[in-house]
Amino acid sequence: MQFLSDNAAPVHPKVWEAMSAADTTDAPYDGDALSAQLDEAMGALFGRECAALWVATGTAANCLALGPMCPPHGGVVCHREAHIEMDEGGAPGFYLHGAKLLLAVGEHAKLTPESIAAVIDPIRDDVHQVQPHAISITQASESGCCYRPGELAAIGALAQERRLKLHMDGARFGNAAAFLGEGAASAAGADHVDALSFGFVKNGGMNAEAVVFFDPAMADQARYRRKRAGHLQSKGRFLAAQILAMLEDNLWLDNAAAANAAACALGDAAGHRLLHPVEANEVFLRCTADERDTLRAKGFGFYDWGADAARFVSAWNADQAAARQLADAIADL
Amino acid sequence: MQFLSDNAAPVHPKVWEAMSAADTTDAPYDGDALSAQLDEAMGALFGRECAALWVATGTAANCLALGPMCPPHGGVVCHREAHIEMDEGGAPGFYLHGAKLLLAVGEHAKLTPESIAAVIDPIRDDVHQVQPHAISITQASESGCCYRPGELAAIGALAQERRLKLHMDGARFGNAAAFLGEGAASAAGADHVDALSFGFVKNGGMNAEAVVFFDPAMADQARYRRKRAGHLQSKGRFLAAQILAMLEDNLWLDNAAAANAAACALGDAAGHRLLHPVEANEVFLRCTADERDTLRAKGFGFYDWGADAARFVSAWNADQAAARQLADAIADL
Amino acid sequence: MQFLSDNAAPVHPKVWEAMSAADTTDAPYDGDALSAQLDEAMGALFGRECAALWVATGTAANCLALGPMCPPHGGVVCHREAHIEMDEGGAPGFYLHGAKLLLAVGEHAKLTPESIAAVIDPIRDDVHQVQPHAISITQASESGCCYRPGELAAIGALAQERRLKLHMDGARFGNAAAFLGEGAASAAGADHVDALSFGFVKNGGMNAEAVVFFDPAMADQARYRRKRAGHLQSKGRFLAAQILAMLEDNLWLDNAAAANAAACALGDAAGHRLLHPVEANEVFLRCTADERDTLRAKGFGFYDWGADAARFVSAWNADQAAARQLADAIADL
Amino acid sequence: MQFLSDNAAPVHPKVWEAMSAADTTDAPYDGDALSAQLDEAMGALFGRECAALWVATGTAANCLALGPMCPPHGGVVCHREAHIEMDEGGAPGFYLHGAKLLLAVGEHAKLTPESIAAVIDPIRDDVHQVQPHAISITQASESGCCYRPGELAAIGALAQERRLKLHMDGARFGNAAAFLGEGAASAAGADHVDALSFGFVKNGGMNAEAVVFFDPAMADQARYRRKRAGHLQSKGRFLAAQILAMLEDNLWLDNAAAANAAACALGDAAGHRLLHPVEANEVFLRCTADERDTLRAKGFGFYDWGADAARFVSAWNADQAAARQLADAIADL
Repeated sequence: MQFLSDNAAPVHPKVWEAMSAADTTDAPYDGDALSAQLDEAMGALFGRECAALWVATGTAANCLALGPMCPPHGGVVCHREAHIEMDEGGAPGFYLHGAKLLLAVGEHAKLTPESIAAVIDPIRDDVHQVQPHAISITQASESGCCYRPGELAAIGALAQERRLKLHMDGARFGNAAAFLGEGAASAAGADHVDALSFGFVKNGGMNAEAVVFFDPAMADQARYRRKRAGHLQSKGRFLAAQILAMLEDNLWLDNAAAANAAACALGDAAGHRLLHPVEANEVFLRCTADERDTLRAKGFGFYDWGADAARFVSAWNADQAAARQLADAIADL
Repeated sequence: MQFLSDNAAPVHPKVWEAMSAADTTDAPYDGDALSAQLDEAMGALFGRECAALWVATGTAANCLALGPMCPPHGGVVCHREAHIEMDEGGAPGFYLHGAKLLLAVGEHAKLTPESIAAVIDPIRDDVHQVQPHAISITQASESGCCYRPGELAAIGALAQERRLKLHMDGARFGNAAAFLGEGAASAAGADHVDALSFGFVKNGGMNAEAVVFFDPAMADQARYRRKRAGHLQSKGRFLAAQILAMLEDNLWLDNAAAANAAACALGDAAGHRLLHPVEANEVFLRCTADERDTLRAKGFGFYDWGADAARFVSAWNADQAAARQLADAIADL
Repeated sequence: MQFLSDNAAPVHPKVWEAMSAADTTDAPYDGDALSAQLDEAMGALFGRECAALWVATGTAANCLALGPMCPPHGGVVCHREAHIEMDEGGAPGFYLHGAKLLLAVGEHAKLTPESIAAVIDPIRDDVHQVQPHAISITQASESGCCYRPGELAAIGALAQERRLKLHMDGARFGNAAAFLGEGAASAAGADHVDALSFGFVKNGGMNAEAVVFFDPAMADQARYRRKRAGHLQSKGRFLAAQILAMLEDNLWLDNAAAANAAACALGDAAGHRLLHPVEANEVFLRCTADERDTLRAKGFGFYDWGADAARFVSAWNADQAAARQLADAIADL
Repeated sequence: MQFLSDNAAPVHPKVWEAMSAADTTDAPYDGDALSAQLDEAMGALFGRECAALWVATGTAANCLALGPMCPPHGGVVCHREAHIEMDEGGAPGFYLHGAKLLLAVGEHAKLTPESIAAVIDPIRDDVHQVQPHAISITQASESGCCYRPGELAAIGALAQERRLKLHMDGARFGNAAAFLGEGAASAAGADHVDALSFGFVKNGGMNAEAVVFFDPAMADQARYRRKRAGHLQSKGRFLAAQILAMLEDNLWLDNAAAANAAACALGDAAGHRLLHPVEANEVFLRCTADERDTLRAKGFGFYDWGADAARFVSAWNADQAAARQLADAIADL
């Protein structure tokens, strides 16, 4: 009964099927028939022209999305708990050739126009200070919380006013879309966001994520950078197949909804112990070391989150009965 | 009857089996049980202590292998037709932070101590010129030719004398080892080479290559750089599974031998038309545009190689009968 | 009566003399007789073997000093108000190839072992997080305050324990040494620090700073990087001449003492208005916009420092009478 | 009687005068009155709107000029003997973040439309190969030869057709302009070239070169990059002063003409021994080791140029009598 990480979950059977079906001789790299369908498939999902590139990891997706947005001498505003700042081994510094992450704060690991302005307003407009060129937000956030459409619009308005590009890290985009319930374009803020890292690996995929450019012109540079970063796989059809399988019949949404349901059960039981509202598939619970021991003694796996909390993550294959057991155990603490 | 590229071939059934077997919940990244076996499996194959990292592409493998060998202000000697120079979209410039490829010549796309010396001897030992720090050779070469053990030893001696690190790009290492017939360590020049990019994708894998450090201390830096380049996949067990499957019962050697056999049949038929001896799974054939039309009219697929030649590549799943047909068609030209 | 910046001050006559004397034909780059004296001159000053490189700016000095200390995938701990973080246009990101500045806090823009530990202790020792490789401190700090020998020793002990290199940004090192009064080696913490950016431009020089490596082996890499960054001037003798002139008869200390004296006069008058103790040549004064208007109406030039403060900087050529007038004006506020 | 390098020559008295006159308190960096005159002064010289930045070295000038022309994943065509390829310690790789120099050939170290096309035509238009984005030519070339206006127009036409930017390395631009005799704009090919590195250090300056953008929009990015590279000197007025002094009354042309005259005398004496026509201030002479000994025994200093040649460089302060003596000695060989 593991609630450690959605990274560790198995691959969905439909994804396996699609990969098997792709196992024919086809053109290498992204010249195959499946890769050729990505732009259209994403275009249909988001209701606008898209350019979509597969890539193996979320870190690469984020960096390739940000590449066309920020020159080496520029900066990207992100939350100080953002994955690109905390957990990607300095990848943005590498891919963006030393560009700087400009760290903002905000409740539940979400940015607001105010918290962004608090970072960029004091920057003097001269060559001595790194100028902001883009904003990166995470949907769902590192605290498992979702930007509402109005919040996205407000950040988008600020970005437009300040002439900043806007990126969305959607490692758990499916979970956010499932929670928000108003479709992919709404959850992505596609009217405001320039590029989305659309994650599938945590949601039933094996090793394929998509970089979706809502401004297709940005994709040209990203294609060169993908190759240059060693991310243009020669049998790319197996990545395209995964993504197409996830999109078909909204498997991505169904998987995310299942994970969210399990997290929701935990959240309901946790009550005032919650550090953040449960709006995706992560639950952050205030609890003592003793209480964590109690839960582990009952067979539940999860990560400590600092000294006084625990993080539980549910995956697409969440055992809802196990989640209810854990919910009961939490309620009994 | 395609002889276009070994990149386009299907995935070997044993690889599929191993990937399926890996589809359990396990620790993310390279913390899983399969990834943990790589060092030992490579150590057994090469008869020495190894540190091995999986990575999705040959380009990334080459760059991660070279990373610990050359500082940003240094240079790497390679053949001017080497893949790292010609076909990786400038990836070494990216991964090595602007380090320079120092281009040498040599018959059949192979370097020799003399051709290497011809590049590095004129470099003045001062800060105005980029100093060589490493040599990269390709086994089998871009012309499908193999370094013999004595040739590797001679280059290794030069490298040692000049205090240069030595890298081997083994995108088709299996084909070379199958041709040379004296085992993995011999084909890799493991007594002389510091790191090998051990390719599996062209040889029946899906999307897993190995960087094998014969100097395990080098691997520590490479681990950080792999993450920083977005190449640390969260479900890394599926890459480890592919590599272990390829090593088991020497599947890698058997697959390569099958590909080589097909190429050999073509080579025998080609006679004096050959641009290079056939020592792996590539055949470079002098032929006119008319002759290429003739072959294509008979249903054979292949690439033009400049105006006056064609390249045929056979894969692990080569249809030996088709190869004989093509051999006959070549003989009939 | 300008107290805007020590960057804007003239060049000391002794520096002009030395530059004129250097205007003979000599070997280019750093092959000249003057450049050859730098190591020894710095060795004599600091009482240990040194390797010293001239360079035109403090930004370049800091970056060349940090270069050998931190790999591209690593991090450098510095104060969040440090010049390398706030005022160098992202130069460390450029020179260190995307390495990261890890921002610590501390009163008066000074780090402490505790504030450093607060940054590095939470960093997990894995590839997902950027690992610290070095610490950079500023003597005198951005708030014009000095590290005492004991404070340097404590930070040095932490650096040694954690195996971190230690850099000192000494853009106003002269001012610090003049304040501390116990010699260059003591002010530099030369027993603990690996490299010092020794500033002269703010202290009477024209365009020469020195990078002083107390670990001479580090200088080799820095020499290549200096050339690679376009900082190896072909008539380097004019930079060496400036530095040697500043060292001769302790001109650097005398100039700094003169600047400090003027700042000290202001500080004495400022009393409880001071934001930071005056320990070098900068005075940070709490005052209203009206009060600033009053001072400017009397002919004094200075920068606003946020909404509620002002910064006064005195230079080597400070007019002590003007400083006393300003001190009186401050006392009258 | 040194003919080793124009880098080693003294500073012209007019440059000293201008630097002395600049030694007042003024705004730091490039906010001073002299720096503010550069755009207009260059505009007057070249007869068009210009944006000009001072920088301390030719290497930095070249790299800052190329910066806005080529993205990190692109390439710059240059002669394989170009300074940026051979003598700048890999600076373009650093400043351009790993972009690649694409090496072309050509007599007398000059490119032609044909030699450029020979490099770029074989490049496949796909992500696997580094695409050309710019061309860099050197006026006068590394062999001391000059592009005629028609040659510049032809290269400019190719650049425009292929949508490549065009850079001119003018480390010895003065010598070229003095030889060509038709004014600065003509020598610079200002109708075709996007940016010129205008060298002064070899021609009587101390440590100031200018990057002149004939497309002023390019300068904005270069300003950020200059700071980021640590090349924004805080007392920039001393660099601006040098450049303005060199431009005043065409001192740059007069100095160059004096150097050229001395080289011309040598060239006339050298006759069939010349490796390249003498069109600037460099003379490349075929001669044996014995002959070089003979010349050195007579007191002449110069560099060997490979085993069978010598290079003589004259500077702005060339002693014409000494040049005639050397000419006689060469004639006597």
